[in-house]
Amino acid sequence: MINNDTIVALATAQGVGAIGVIRLSGPQAIGITNSVFKGKNLTTQPSHTIHYGHIIEGDVTIDEVMVSLFRAPKSFTTEDVVEISCHGSPYIAEQIIRLLIQQGARSAKPGEFTLRAFMHGRIDLSQAEAVADLIASNSSASHDLAIKQMRGGFSHQIAALRQRLVNFTSLIELELDFAEEDVEFANRDQLIALIDEIQNALRPLIESFRLGNVIKNGVNTVIIGKPNAGKSTLLNVLLNEERAIVSDIAGTTRDTIEEVMNLNGIQFRFIDTAGLRQTTDVIEKVGVEKALEKLKQSSVYIYLFDVNTTTPEQLLADVMELALTDFNGLIIGNKIDSAHWEDTAAFLYVLKNNPVTNAAKLHEHLLFISANANKHIDILKDRLYKLATLNQSLGSENTIVANMRHYEALIRADEILLEIKLGIGNHITGELISLELKRALHHLGEISGEVTNDEILGNIFSKFCIGK
Amino acid sequence: MINNDTIVALATAQGVGAIGVIRLSGPQAIGITNSVFKGKNLTTQPSHTIHYGHIIEGDVTIDEVMVSLFRAPKSFTTEDVVEISCHGSPYIAEQIIRLLIQQGARSAKPGEFTLRAFMHGRIDLSQAEAVADLIASNSSASHDLAIKQMRGGFSHQIAALRQRLVNFTSLIELELDFAEEDVEFANRDQLIALIDEIQNALRPLIESFRLGNVIKNGVNTVIIGKPNAGKSTLLNVLLNEERAIVSDIAGTTRDTIEEVMNLNGIQFRFIDTAGLRQTTDVIEKVGVEKALEKLKQSSVYIYLFDVNTTTPEQLLADVMELALTDFNGLIIGNKIDSAHWEDTAAFLYVLKNNPVTNAAKLHEHLLFISANANKHIDILKDRLYKLATLNQSLGSENTIVANMRHYEALIRADEILLEIKLGIGNHITGELISLELKRALHHLGEISGEVTNDEILGNIFSKFCIGK
Repeated sequence: MINNDTIVALATAQGVGAIGVIRLSGPQAIGITNSVFKGKNLTTQPSHTIHYGHIIEGDVTIDEVMVSLFRAPKSFTTEDVVEISCHGSPYIAEQIIRLLIQQGARSAKPGEFTLRAFMHGRIDLSQAEAVADLIASNSSASHDLAIKQMRGGFSHQIAALRQRLVNFTSLIELELDFAEEDVEFANRDQLIALIDEIQNALRPLIESFRLGNVIKNGVNTVIIGKPNAGKSTLLNVLLNEERAIVSDIAGTTRDTIEEVMNLNGIQFRFIDTAGLRQTTDVIEKVGVEKALEKLKQSSVYIYLFDVNTTTPEQLLADVMELALTDFNGLIIGNKIDSAHWEDTAAFLYVLKNNPVTNAAKLHEHLLFISANANKHIDILKDRLYKLATLNQSLGSENTIVANMRHYEALIRADEILLEIKLGIGNHITGELISLELKRALHHLGEISGEVTNDEILGNIFSKFCIGK
Repeated sequence: MINNDTIVALATAQGVGAIGVIRLSGPQAIGITNSVFKGKNLTTQPSHTIHYGHIIEGDVTIDEVMVSLFRAPKSFTTEDVVEISCHGSPYIAEQIIRLLIQQGARSAKPGEFTLRAFMHGRIDLSQAEAVADLIASNSSASHDLAIKQMRGGFSHQIAALRQRLVNFTSLIELELDFAEEDVEFANRDQLIALIDEIQNALRPLIESFRLGNVIKNGVNTVIIGKPNAGKSTLLNVLLNEERAIVSDIAGTTRDTIEEVMNLNGIQFRFIDTAGLRQTTDVIEKVGVEKALEKLKQSSVYIYLFDVNTTTPEQLLADVMELALTDFNGLIIGNKIDSAHWEDTAAFLYVLKNNPVTNAAKLHEHLLFISANANKHIDILKDRLYKLATLNQSLGSENTIVANMRHYEALIRADEILLEIKLGIGNHITGELISLELKRALHHLGEISGEVTNDEILGNIFSKFCIGK
């Protein structure tokens, strides 16, 4: 998969801006650029320098540019890299890229620059994946996770443990070479101890994936409630504060989707439940079906009811009809600023004394607020955050796996290691142990890319944007 | 209007890309960047060098970046300029800009970098405007025009002529100082000769504006015709060829509007005439009204008719009803691949023998094609191009004015110069000549920005994108 040609692509976002950057990588990067550059002779300039000049096609000036040179191996790809900073018009970028292709460069495939960095050993596979995650990051938590992974993260730890397993596998192989002599180079107890050690490292990583997934992909949150429960007021209270913070940062525009809230770096995406809104008093059959569908699509629900117009028995009936016991969320009594809100204890009592809702501990998910009066909204946010993060800390001390591919490799390695332990207990042959160990090594090696194939690489890098 | 603070903005297009570039300019640009940069000490590095490192906030790494340094005066703004190349995530760019603002930078206003380049005398006003035109350019002709203007273009020529007029005005002023002595320092005949010379330079520029406007803003082209005249076939023939050329350039995406054709670098935007399409045989009243409206909105029309189903008398009636004599365009008989297309001479005859259509020389605008068989489409394109460009050449030898502000300044200067000439013939006083000369100098100075005010500057630079 290593190509020796020179690739080119627009590295900045599509569209009109003040400047656009075109990136080349490969042995001819500087030569090709120099052939269309009017200014200094770029081929004799040192690395990490910037040169003013013009991109020309014959007598015609295409643009006034700044050219940055990065000579191998001190570049992102470890190859010669050139970045041409031109005026930010899509038309101009297109013209310059066309010209560079005419001079011998090839249009880069998605992620091909990063692929080259990986193939030349500058970064491992999990670091390459972190580059894509970093570009896609849109919250502080997902950003921190990607930064950590890009700087090595847990893949270095896994690689070190894997190396010790490689050594052990060699010993077993050696044993097989001397099979007639019935010696045992590889101590089985030591192998079990090593497997235990590796499993102790893998298990927290495997468990961290649910949180990692929340951080990376955000939390789909459905808000359900009858009309006039105060759903849109609550949504406004939650969103408006956040929006005010965002708009304080001048000069930047965000590609925000409507109804997204960022809570301590975790993104909550609110899902509409129009079905329930159309009903008037009793929850109709179709409304319930739609709500159940939305519940299944989301990680967390907020069930909102008006404490002043809902009896505890009605709440219980609605909760049972929606099967809220099967899902993860908050049951929130709204409008406690009105009279009689002291009666909320009755709601707790009814949920606790019903065998089904009590088994699901739904009464512990009860919360009373006033969206209108902005009362207990901070508590609601705190509870929502804890539900989404499973009460786990996002602190920098924890290593968190957010990549599905890594998660699957960890799961498989862990399963095989368990099988090996059981096998040793059953006195399986060294040959079988060696076979199983190689399978475990394979999966552990997948994470950093020590073991890989074209299909996996194609899969990973095709998801990158062009120019990265 | 010169500020001494340090400004910052995202310089690349909004959205996700492989990289994003954040630009700072001002005396603190390097110091502010250095205060959040982990790597080399940037303050001691030479100009035009690139440095690898991390943007940090306390212990937290925001991103891995490359920092480019441009020291005053060798930069775009002539101030110290720093470009931070970060991963192309809007979230990351926002975080870095926030951090730089915390450290003392200010969010740049639209066009403020270019404004500073102008205020510090690195470029004149028409060159600054060309930067914006260049970024907005989307055809080879508009691009070439902007490049030429950015490199000085006609504003240098105007500035030289204006200087000679300044010298003359000084002589007249001197004359006024010695008013009692009744001397004449400034020879009136020489002034008239100079004015003639300036007007000879201004007139072609003024006349070039209609073409410049076509180049810069494209040509709105309305295609009118009864149903089954072959309008959509023609549009497809015109557009598909062009699209095929565009899609040949791999790795680039264009912000194309549907139904835009690029002919020798001029953009033709086709305007729909749904009104006429709804009619069946006779052109209905409402259809005619809509078509007239579209005709008024466009620079060029194409009136298409089927030679096999239209009699010359019908064509004449339709042409008169649409008042095509009032507009600029082509009358095209389609489907000449079918039988009897030799009869087209009759159409010519009827248009030529009607006094109204003959006066408008409409018969010279007649053309016969077959969209289906791709017959005479090249002739149609050539005629369309010549209509749009008024038979003028876009060759590099011609200086073309495309900016409305420049055009207005030229028009006003020309008018005043004419008044002065008339005034001298009527022996007006030196005082009045001096006054008028100053008015002419004002308008000529507006082009390059030698004469300007905050309102004009605000107007020009507010149209720039942020970061430029």
